[in-house]
Amino acid sequence: MRFTSQTSSDGVTEQFFTLSFTSGEIPGVLWTPDGAAAGPRPLILMGHGGGQHKKAPGIEARARRFVAECGFAVAAVDAPAHGDRPRDEEHNQAISELRTRMRTGGEVTSALARFHTLLAGQSVPEWRAVLDALQQLDHVGAGPVGYCGMSLGCALGVPFIAAEPRVRAAVLGLNGAETSAEAAARITVPLEFLVQWDDEMVPRTASLALFDLFASTEKTLHANPGKHAEIPMFELDSALRFFTRHLS
Amino acid sequence: MRFTSQTSSDGVTEQFFTLSFTSGEIPGVLWTPDGAAAGPRPLILMGHGGGQHKKAPGIEARARRFVAECGFAVAAVDAPAHGDRPRDEEHNQAISELRTRMRTGGEVTSALARFHTLLAGQSVPEWRAVLDALQQLDHVGAGPVGYCGMSLGCALGVPFIAAEPRVRAAVLGLNGAETSAEAAARITVPLEFLVQWDDEMVPRTASLALFDLFASTEKTLHANPGKHAEIPMFELDSALRFFTRHLS
Repeated sequence: MRFTSQTSSDGVTEQFFTLSFTSGEIPGVLWTPDGAAAGPRPLILMGHGGGQHKKAPGIEARARRFVAECGFAVAAVDAPAHGDRPRDEEHNQAISELRTRMRTGGEVTSALARFHTLLAGQSVPEWRAVLDALQQLDHVGAGPVGYCGMSLGCALGVPFIAAEPRVRAAVLGLNGAETSAEAAARITVPLEFLVQWDDEMVPRTASLALFDLFASTEKTLHANPGKHAEIPMFELDSALRFFTRHLS
Repeated sequence: MRFTSQTSSDGVTEQFFTLSFTSGEIPGVLWTPDGAAAGPRPLILMGHGGGQHKKAPGIEARARRFVAECGFAVAAVDAPAHGDRPRDEEHNQAISELRTRMRTGGEVTSALARFHTLLAGQSVPEWRAVLDALQQLDHVGAGPVGYCGMSLGCALGVPFIAAEPRVRAAVLGLNGAETSAEAAARITVPLEFLVQWDDEMVPRTASLALFDLFASTEKTLHANPGKHAEIPMFELDSALRFFTRHLS
């Protein structure tokens, strides 16, 4: 893991990094409290949405609150084929099929699920390698780990959490059961799962089906009116308290 | 409103009262901070569940936390045909029909809805009279009002909130759309709505249908695994923050 830049504002240090992996260079960001003492401290891994990247406004805003209000470390990386990362032929084909179906009013769910499955096959080992490297850092350390991801971040998070025993709690949402049913049934950690009641991209029944599948004994579904991108701000407060309860 | 006894423990004053109304004497309890200064202060009205009463453990435990942690006033009354209140012939018939159906494995939902509708016709004007009287008290006053009720407390709360503009926010749940669809569609205040995912008494679809009906632009459904009576403790923390956000 190589750090490429470091800045600080409002008590939060932001470090860009890159990690060399078999799948190529993984670019990421790490946010920690300014002048953080040696760890271990709780670490939240944040998975961004489709078409977004590691520094998307929704990711950074949440990360900064987790750091400033809870003293956590937070990291985000560009998912495969997103942000600063290249796309290969397989990515291009899947994206092109998805766009065609969206444009022509075709059946999108299965095409989206295939794209998510393709990306998840790459991102699960990447997240595990990033986590290994982050936990080596003096100001992060091997503390409890949380995962937070909506939409694509949920689709890639579910198989990651199922594979990674270091993740102890997660806030997920805005995704249905199509991509990750088998992995969901292997997840047992506490979950907060967000559903937008009028989601134009994820059918309500698919969201409820995914919630149903998680094997966690503590899992709470939070549903709010509004479209895919309209999660109310008070859900961030709730996520903050959820992670504080389970990781602190 | 006549006070019949007063005790204090852990910083919370508990006063039993009775209010003479056209429907008879309404017995209730008021909890306030010890030595509360003159109001107005936020007031939470709590509706108990079926077969319970104003001092049921779940009611009192929640009331005491609202008072001790938020400085609110909290009141509960015995619903018609519950607690210290008499049952008339119509109540007895409805209860008897309900018990028969439960015992014989008959269709319970419609019988329960009829019982709830009968009680709601009585309890809505009663709650309004109790609220009038409480707001006259020096240590309560005419501050913002919240309502909190699960199960029967939700079935009776929905028509009350629809009828009473003084109620500004509510935590409801464990009830379906059968009793109160028309009233639900007239509610516009912020809501937190609790669903038990494995509720043996309220079908999941009926709960989701009631949540759907509320006209509130801010409404959040919280669903947790478990049976009717197994709401997790952290939902009380959430209710506390919800009322603090909307009434303080």
